[in-house]
Amino acid sequence: MQNIQAVELAKAYRLLNHGPTTIVTSAHGGVSNVMAAAWAMPLDFDPPKVLLVIDSSTLTRELVEASGEFALNIPTRALAETTLAVGSSSGREGDKFAALDIATFPSEKIGAPLMSGCLAWLECKVIPELHNQQRYDLFIAEVVAAWADSAAFSAGRWHFPADDQRSLHYLSGGAFFATGEAFNVELKP
Amino acid sequence: MQNIQAVELAKAYRLLNHGPTTIVTSAHGGVSNVMAAAWAMPLDFDPPKVLLVIDSSTLTRELVEASGEFALNIPTRALAETTLAVGSSSGREGDKFAALDIATFPSEKIGAPLMSGCLAWLECKVIPELHNQQRYDLFIAEVVAAWADSAAFSAGRWHFPADDQRSLHYLSGGAFFATGEAFNVELKP
Repeated sequence: MQNIQAVELAKAYRLLNHGPTTIVTSAHGGVSNVMAAAWAMPLDFDPPKVLLVIDSSTLTRELVEASGEFALNIPTRALAETTLAVGSSSGREGDKFAALDIATFPSEKIGAPLMSGCLAWLECKVIPELHNQQRYDLFIAEVVAAWADSAAFSAGRWHFPADDQRSLHYLSGGAFFATGEAFNVELKP
Repeated sequence: MQNIQAVELAKAYRLLNHGPTTIVTSAHGGVSNVMAAAWAMPLDFDPPKVLLVIDSSTLTRELVEASGEFALNIPTRALAETTLAVGSSSGREGDKFAALDIATFPSEKIGAPLMSGCLAWLECKVIPELHNQQRYDLFIAEVVAAWADSAAFSAGRWHFPADDQRSLHYLSGGAFFATGEAFNVELKP
């Protein structure tokens, strides 16, 4: 069982600040879907906003535009194959949750399910910006709730408990990096 | 000496796809500046576009709006202190290149200087989107030239030659992650 704790909204950007690859979950009208997205990042601190690029051909795009909502799930290295798989097939071809044996649990403020086994979750409501959506496939959203597995993130800090529980950074093909060594630097006086 | 090679524009997104922290260089009217930016990511593949968030209070913002150009430089772990320092002071207080002993070399397609010792460089021209700039501090730009140190990136792949030559992922305060272990996964049949 994961010990899932709320993340203070003013610190929610720290879940994304290091540039991890995300998994996007969405739902509308009884249909839900899951896909991978490397192109997600913070846009503002408080209230927290995020940017997400969603290709116009995807089922996720249809569900996000219809519902005005999505969740960003931060997967672990243990979920790298699943991350590649949800990014390599369309929800129009069949239910990816069932096909890939992906367990979920309910979000609090939106309709999209959250993916079990991830490190953190950001529940997001789209701020409608039709020009960006239509011209650039770019979505701006406000983070309305954020959660993290306390084994990996607490008090505004990541502390990955094991190598297969580190976050992921996607390159291309099936190539990823794990999030590496943490270190601190100080300003010289 | 770094062996700097051109990166094919269709593969330039791979310089940013894993979410590294960047250093932004800019210039206009004889003034140049350098600052850190964790909030930069790809927006499109070919022609490549990027997103960059630039706070409205910064000298960089003024130079980018005036010139319509900026460069994204990808720093190494060896440059982590410099990355923190250029993100912690304003170019209005004095020339950060001189104060922090930052060497540069000329870009090819834009006026901003490129920072020596980095892993890769993206020369960018702003696509004017005033609503995004004014409301969200968000800039959309096309990548017009891209370069990489061939010791770290070639044939579309990263291969960091040493631990202090890995890219960086910023969290907050002086806390960073290094880019970690590379690995590949395959789709199950």
